[in-house]
Amino acid sequence: MSLSLYEVSVPALIRGLENLSRQIDKAAAYAQENGLNGDEFVQARLAPDMLSLAGQVQRASDTAKFGGARLSQGQAPSFADEEATLDELKARIAKTVDYLRGVQAKDVDGGDKREIRFKAGQRELQFVADDYVRNYLLPNFYFHLTTAYGLLRHKGVPLGKLDYLGNIQAA
Amino acid sequence: MSLSLYEVSVPALIRGLENLSRQIDKAAAYAQENGLNGDEFVQARLAPDMLSLAGQVQRASDTAKFGGARLSQGQAPSFADEEATLDELKARIAKTVDYLRGVQAKDVDGGDKREIRFKAGQRELQFVADDYVRNYLLPNFYFHLTTAYGLLRHKGVPLGKLDYLGNIQAA
Repeated sequence: MSLSLYEVSVPALIRGLENLSRQIDKAAAYAQENGLNGDEFVQARLAPDMLSLAGQVQRASDTAKFGGARLSQGQAPSFADEEATLDELKARIAKTVDYLRGVQAKDVDGGDKREIRFKAGQRELQFVADDYVRNYLLPNFYFHLTTAYGLLRHKGVPLGKLDYLGNIQAA
Repeated sequence: MSLSLYEVSVPALIRGLENLSRQIDKAAAYAQENGLNGDEFVQARLAPDMLSLAGQVQRASDTAKFGGARLSQGQAPSFADEEATLDELKARIAKTVDYLRGVQAKDVDGGDKREIRFKAGQRELQFVADDYVRNYLLPNFYFHLTTAYGLLRHKGVPLGKLDYLGNIQAA
């Protein structure tokens, strides 16, 4: 038995984005309870040359939507990187999830050995599809989710690992 | 075509740990070039109630070794959480990789629907093996890798995304 390329990719992207959206809700609630402007979190960074929270959410969104599109040979929607508030970040996530829900397993599966090429910054990258999922899509997606989580924690938002992992089953 | 449970798990764990080890080399080099004590990085944190770099590396190691053991119905080696220097963190990673290299695909594959139960903190968790990989093992592993990376970046170590992703192919 084994996992299809769809099963190891698209559901994990949707799940991670939904977990991220709930963390942003908690950040907004924390700001309100403490008389802070939650939208200032949007520009927070862990290092001066790292992306802000907005950037981390935008890259998580792009990683996910381009992942879905590349794997299904579809066309990802275009989103301007203009989000400046927590609500706008949540809307970006919701649009990304909407797109991913439309990606069909039948369009992904069977393409495990398809070539995937794209530009990342100045570099042109080339993968076989299954390596793309394992060595780029998933690590890169979780990178941006975790950095967003770390930024919110660094700003004092009371989050725990389960906010990142989402709903897991107690025995 | 599809991916076996081994193919989506153990190689990614080895790869991620090896990338982390190379980042620690760069942290040591950065400290030396700048007259810093690199071993002080070992206690750095992003938030007072988050784990230190040592804790992130130890949890990445544990997540990986227990992942390999649970999936193969094997026994993970026991490591005391006593690392206090960058070199000791590298040794912990190397021991973890050694263990994972011994995990056999034949002992993992076919067990996709096996039940996996374990304690995480106070909670007892229960998964079917393929959900364990997708919803716990990989996100949790990349969480600790990314937080370790973010800590080193926060401390000024000059790392880039490719240090985290590791060797990916240019087209």
